[in-house]
Amino acid sequence: MGTTAPPASLTPAEARSVFRAGRAVPTAGWADGHTQANLVAVPADWAYDVLLFAQRNPKPCPVLDVTEPGGTSTVLAPGADLRTDLPRYRVYRDGRLTEEPTEVTGLWRDDLVAFLIGCSFTFEAALGAAGVPLRHLEQACNVPMFRTSRPCRPAGRLHGPLVVSMRPIPSQLVDTAHRLTALMPGVHGAPVHTGDPGELGIEDLDTPDFGDPVRMLPGDVPVFWACGVTPQAALMASAPPFAITHAPGHMLITDARDADYRIA
Amino acid sequence: MGTTAPPASLTPAEARSVFRAGRAVPTAGWADGHTQANLVAVPADWAYDVLLFAQRNPKPCPVLDVTEPGGTSTVLAPGADLRTDLPRYRVYRDGRLTEEPTEVTGLWRDDLVAFLIGCSFTFEAALGAAGVPLRHLEQACNVPMFRTSRPCRPAGRLHGPLVVSMRPIPSQLVDTAHRLTALMPGVHGAPVHTGDPGELGIEDLDTPDFGDPVRMLPGDVPVFWACGVTPQAALMASAPPFAITHAPGHMLITDARDADYRIA
Repeated sequence: MGTTAPPASLTPAEARSVFRAGRAVPTAGWADGHTQANLVAVPADWAYDVLLFAQRNPKPCPVLDVTEPGGTSTVLAPGADLRTDLPRYRVYRDGRLTEEPTEVTGLWRDDLVAFLIGCSFTFEAALGAAGVPLRHLEQACNVPMFRTSRPCRPAGRLHGPLVVSMRPIPSQLVDTAHRLTALMPGVHGAPVHTGDPGELGIEDLDTPDFGDPVRMLPGDVPVFWACGVTPQAALMASAPPFAITHAPGHMLITDARDADYRIA
Repeated sequence: MGTTAPPASLTPAEARSVFRAGRAVPTAGWADGHTQANLVAVPADWAYDVLLFAQRNPKPCPVLDVTEPGGTSTVLAPGADLRTDLPRYRVYRDGRLTEEPTEVTGLWRDDLVAFLIGCSFTFEAALGAAGVPLRHLEQACNVPMFRTSRPCRPAGRLHGPLVVSMRPIPSQLVDTAHRLTALMPGVHGAPVHTGDPGELGIEDLDTPDFGDPVRMLPGDVPVFWACGVTPQAALMASAPPFAITHAPGHMLITDARDADYRIA
């Protein structure tokens, strides 16, 4: 790493420099308190569809910033280079995942527009601080994510299912979790569903579509939040000719603070 | 009016039918509890700029819905016709206000995209219900609005100043007003400034740029919210070839409920 500091204590700029140098690890726990963001970059010809899809589906797609065509910087992280400063990327061609490189300098195009989208890491920090246990962190796995039977509201050529993340929450803390995340609409907001997974068309909580299965403890209730993987699912379903995203869990660490996204 | 019911008791559909029939009065106080929306319609060629301007300036431009090009309906008000169901419109050509008709059927174009934008009427209802006095209503005038010296973040060809509305709030209720409106980010959210108007570049509270001056009472503090007139100011500053908006105060009454826009 070129540093012996614990990742949580790094500044966002330090963390980005580590990733720019080639380290390719998930960003959970890095640069504590700073907002991490999903990346979706598409050709300018598709940018209106993506922005409108986000407007029409704000819970899964809370847009934090949009770049100029061909731009590689964001107001959320001055000095960052979007082509190199995430630890790992995914490249989609005609809706198919073709590569997972650690930098995309050679693939960036003059017409790419990048969308930075809020991430549940932000509200997990708030939940943890309020004493709401996060089972996937306790069990050292990724949060489980599921495609649902609920379609997103389409926008132009973009369509796809709502994807949700699931966190088991002790029943007496479900209200707290709901109230806290409702105050953070910029990072997915309140849960979209609590309880029976069947109502979302989810057949088996033990076989997530993305991430890892997580063990429920006695008294836990499954709580479902809209998930930032939704736009990636829409890219796969809608097949723009070219797109670049972050690799799941390998986010952009911004200079914004999680606290900035709590509205009250 | 074809009805003797008080305007506040009408359903949104009834209110829209009254306006469709030609009545051209401000919509304040009509169809109580239902969300009213600002209208901005531009050629599709300008739609990305408007949508991005709104994303970059969410406090003055909270987008509630966007129509398909040429469409005249919105999910917010099934059965409504956007060309006839507002009481009065404004037509801009090359950034200049040219007409204020009561319907725009003959002016609507196949490439027009309509944006429906949240309105402070929604949060005023919440303030009133919480016992926060609204001086402009007590004084039976329009809320005063001011261009500020703060530029909005530009988007493509769109640029312009932040426009704010000002409400005098008794000092002991400023916190309440802040807290309540923070919970309604879809309708401008928390105030952008409290106190000295000079910090916003406003020289004289008695000479608003839009609306009417309002008298402050002893103990009142001026509180400033981002205002839905901001996109109209951007249209005037940026001069797209053609645009249609609502006339100030003459909004679309939707079927949505004000309570839907309170997030917690």
